[in-house]
Amino acid sequence: MIEDEAFAVDVFARACSSRETLQDVTGRWGTLALVALHEGPYRFSALRRRVEGVSERMLSQTLQALERDGLVNREVLEAIPPKVEYSLTDLGTEVASKLQALIDVVEARMADVTAARARYDAR
Amino acid sequence: MIEDEAFAVDVFARACSSRETLQDVTGRWGTLALVALHEGPYRFSALRRRVEGVSERMLSQTLQALERDGLVNREVLEAIPPKVEYSLTDLGTEVASKLQALIDVVEARMADVTAARARYDAR
Repeated sequence: MIEDEAFAVDVFARACSSRETLQDVTGRWGTLALVALHEGPYRFSALRRRVEGVSERMLSQTLQALERDGLVNREVLEAIPPKVEYSLTDLGTEVASKLQALIDVVEARMADVTAARARYDAR
Repeated sequence: MIEDEAFAVDVFARACSSRETLQDVTGRWGTLALVALHEGPYRFSALRRRVEGVSERMLSQTLQALERDGLVNREVLEAIPPKVEYSLTDLGTEVASKLQALIDVVEARMADVTAARARYDAR
């Protein structure tokens, strides 16, 4: 897709930075973090419980990449001890809703996927 | 999302096989392979050129996982030498259309992402 001549964007192009962003949002933990935050703002530890199985380090790196891409807001709340809350930006909300639509299909059709795997493995 | 009591599906659950399928379709190469095949069937070598930067080995592994999940058909065409063509199943088409919608957002908003990154890096 070409926005204008000075700013061509194509995820199929190896060097296009949109490919990197696509990886941030579709990475193992990026997807789940965005879709969890689509439910509402989370503090770090609650988000980590929601995204079952993610390590502190991986969640922290994931959120940092998403914040850098302008998809996630990180807000330090005045409290003792200080609390950090994460939420989606408008762009993050737009991306998360597309991811949610994808997950809805995968979850709804999982019985078909499981059947296909059984057929494949029996060949 | 719970289909019935015997078949609960939730990508947030660490042990749910839907998480594995989500990773197959959102993996670095899985996404691009599915979206390329959404354009139409491809032979292996043409698909490899379309998905710039993928190695033969990675594309082969990616297609095998997608075929096992029931998202991609692999058809051996009678010819000398034999040709192998890949295409989407109905389920693959459904998944690929959701991925395309996600990519459309990422590509269309890439200028915002680039601006957000510049702000982040300047902090």
